[in-house]
Amino acid sequence: MGLTFEISSTAPTGGRRAALRIPHGTVQTPVFMPVGTAATVKTVQQETLEHIGQNGAGAEIILANTYHLYLRPGHELIRRAGGVHRFMAWPRPLLTDSGGFQVFSLAKLRKISDDGVEFRSHLDGSKHFFSPEHSMEVQIALGADIMMAFDECVETPATWERTRDSMSLTHAWAARSRAYFEAHKDEVRWSSDSSCHSERSEESPHFGALQSLTDRTQSLFGIVQGGMYPDLRRESAERLVEMDFEGYAIGGLAVGEPREVTREMIARSLEILPKDKPRYVMGVGYPDEIEEYARMGVDMMDCVLPTRAARHGLLFRAPEPGEEGTAVRMNVKRLEYAEDQRPIDPACTCLVCRRYTRAYLRHLFVAKEPLGATLNSIHNLSFYLDTMERVRGELAG
Amino acid sequence: MGLTFEISSTAPTGGRRAALRIPHGTVQTPVFMPVGTAATVKTVQQETLEHIGQNGAGAEIILANTYHLYLRPGHELIRRAGGVHRFMAWPRPLLTDSGGFQVFSLAKLRKISDDGVEFRSHLDGSKHFFSPEHSMEVQIALGADIMMAFDECVETPATWERTRDSMSLTHAWAARSRAYFEAHKDEVRWSSDSSCHSERSEESPHFGALQSLTDRTQSLFGIVQGGMYPDLRRESAERLVEMDFEGYAIGGLAVGEPREVTREMIARSLEILPKDKPRYVMGVGYPDEIEEYARMGVDMMDCVLPTRAARHGLLFRAPEPGEEGTAVRMNVKRLEYAEDQRPIDPACTCLVCRRYTRAYLRHLFVAKEPLGATLNSIHNLSFYLDTMERVRGELAG
Repeated sequence: MGLTFEISSTAPTGGRRAALRIPHGTVQTPVFMPVGTAATVKTVQQETLEHIGQNGAGAEIILANTYHLYLRPGHELIRRAGGVHRFMAWPRPLLTDSGGFQVFSLAKLRKISDDGVEFRSHLDGSKHFFSPEHSMEVQIALGADIMMAFDECVETPATWERTRDSMSLTHAWAARSRAYFEAHKDEVRWSSDSSCHSERSEESPHFGALQSLTDRTQSLFGIVQGGMYPDLRRESAERLVEMDFEGYAIGGLAVGEPREVTREMIARSLEILPKDKPRYVMGVGYPDEIEEYARMGVDMMDCVLPTRAARHGLLFRAPEPGEEGTAVRMNVKRLEYAEDQRPIDPACTCLVCRRYTRAYLRHLFVAKEPLGATLNSIHNLSFYLDTMERVRGELAG
Repeated sequence: MGLTFEISSTAPTGGRRAALRIPHGTVQTPVFMPVGTAATVKTVQQETLEHIGQNGAGAEIILANTYHLYLRPGHELIRRAGGVHRFMAWPRPLLTDSGGFQVFSLAKLRKISDDGVEFRSHLDGSKHFFSPEHSMEVQIALGADIMMAFDECVETPATWERTRDSMSLTHAWAARSRAYFEAHKDEVRWSSDSSCHSERSEESPHFGALQSLTDRTQSLFGIVQGGMYPDLRRESAERLVEMDFEGYAIGGLAVGEPREVTREMIARSLEILPKDKPRYVMGVGYPDEIEEYARMGVDMMDCVLPTRAARHGLLFRAPEPGEEGTAVRMNVKRLEYAEDQRPIDPACTCLVCRRYTRAYLRHLFVAKEPLGATLNSIHNLSFYLDTMERVRGELAG
């Protein structure tokens, strides 16, 4: 069995409070998933990730990128290490994307056929081929709790015809992803080979619970495409639901379109997607966006924004009296913070705000000290997790 | 009062086990001090520094660089923030160097006179002047527990005559450093202004103990120079002892000379320096060196090596059966570690060795992921602290 999804309450807006049980743990939703591209959430230690956020619960699930890990260090190496969980020493839930988005955004010289995509690595120009079956094989080697169907991501803007054709290819690939996954899902290392855990669990305290994973499997989510066309979004959702995935993602958004369009595409997709399964919007967004989508009924989201913004000195904080919205942006390199002895966010209880001043964080940023990126990332991730904790509280009440 | 130094035992080799009490805490010696150049031990969080090492005691004292902090963010800014301790949220003991070494190794277009050194910043070419008095003024603004007399560092190799002249200048500057320090040592923020702590201590749990600092002062150490000439080293030590500092450093070593020469210069200096005061060798060294010098009677050492080597993928670990020495060097980027599922050092209890594999650390290094430098630094610093913990254990017995 892959997952169970228990909804405890649903608000009139459609937002729901639920518990997603997957092999490596239970995730309280709606949830924001920090992105660990190359099996590391950039600049942040795993032991810190386990404790960020208001109540010290830490990140309950993170994401890793199939394309990046396939190229380096290679999925077979990770399979032999026991999967990404063991490779990066992250015993909690994990999700891998399909590699599709990165093949279309990072790789060079792509050649797309019905069969799959030939591309050259952005690292060394070497030639590779991804098909739905190969993406599944790679993701099974990586061994995340949740894996994603292989999809084509259309460029933006794209015509209705182009978007429809791309969507149809995505549907064909989704069916092939599903078929391959069903035939091979018991191959994941932690399900089929319990000895690999019992050996290791004597050495490491982090994997003690894993022995109960035998006979659990990964789950596969389908991805709704359809660009910026409401009719295609609905059609895509319908086709995928017919294939009966364990969860559904909405992909191809936040690629430059106005936010009203993003919201509209999410709304049209949610109308079709089954209410009793987890629904995941990929690659969003700013704090006020994730909050809004969660209230609409989105259960899972991921984005590089909190960590990438942190590395560029952009921090999020709660508004002070007189300020509008729920998330104020501050650029830590501004001169006005040079002698500001307050924490980033006086209302925040993260380890950064409990200890360090804006003046110190500005100094680290200006001096290009690596600790700056780390502390900024910890704060922004905490802010994102706290935002979702607040929304979960509202939805539960 | 600046410090007390209580020796509990002295070995036949001259090595001693002691407790150095300074305003921000007690330091068990012999001690290795991690270097926090720009008010940050590169890539490592302060909360991690507080817990590294075998017994979780963490780093009891760290070093910050006067030259770097003077240029950026500026010593007056740090004074207004309450000193380096508060600026970087490090409530434990701290030592600042005099800036001399960096002026002579990093700054450009130096013009040396009896009065001091004119130089241009390595950051922006701006013109600055450091005299002994100015170094003291800057170090009092920074507010470390221990500060260093301003010295000239002679180039290597240098003739006996050139080295003697440089040494004489260092002695003149030491006397001026001492005079300025005595006249101004009660100006340090945490000694003269208790309100600055009580205000803050309500906000932050880290500085609660600081209120007892009122009426404590910084301490000033003199620096023995004399290049690679035993007679000059002895003469330098004698002159400085006449000036009666609270502790003595041995500077100008580990600048490219063979290790036998380093050892010889330390030995000649130690013969002269008073046995009841702390003795500090600046800028050393490899793990086997710090161990050796500690056994000879050196109480304090600092070096960028553990953190700098870490950023270049060079790790230290205990020898395995059949390997020689007390510290084996391993280059984590080597292909042989690509699938090595062991920790760096199976005998090490640091948070890195308890959780992460060589394979993962190699991946982070090869992928240029910033977490690699952080984890490598934490391990190397732990190894250095553990090395000194072991030596202290031997000296106590």
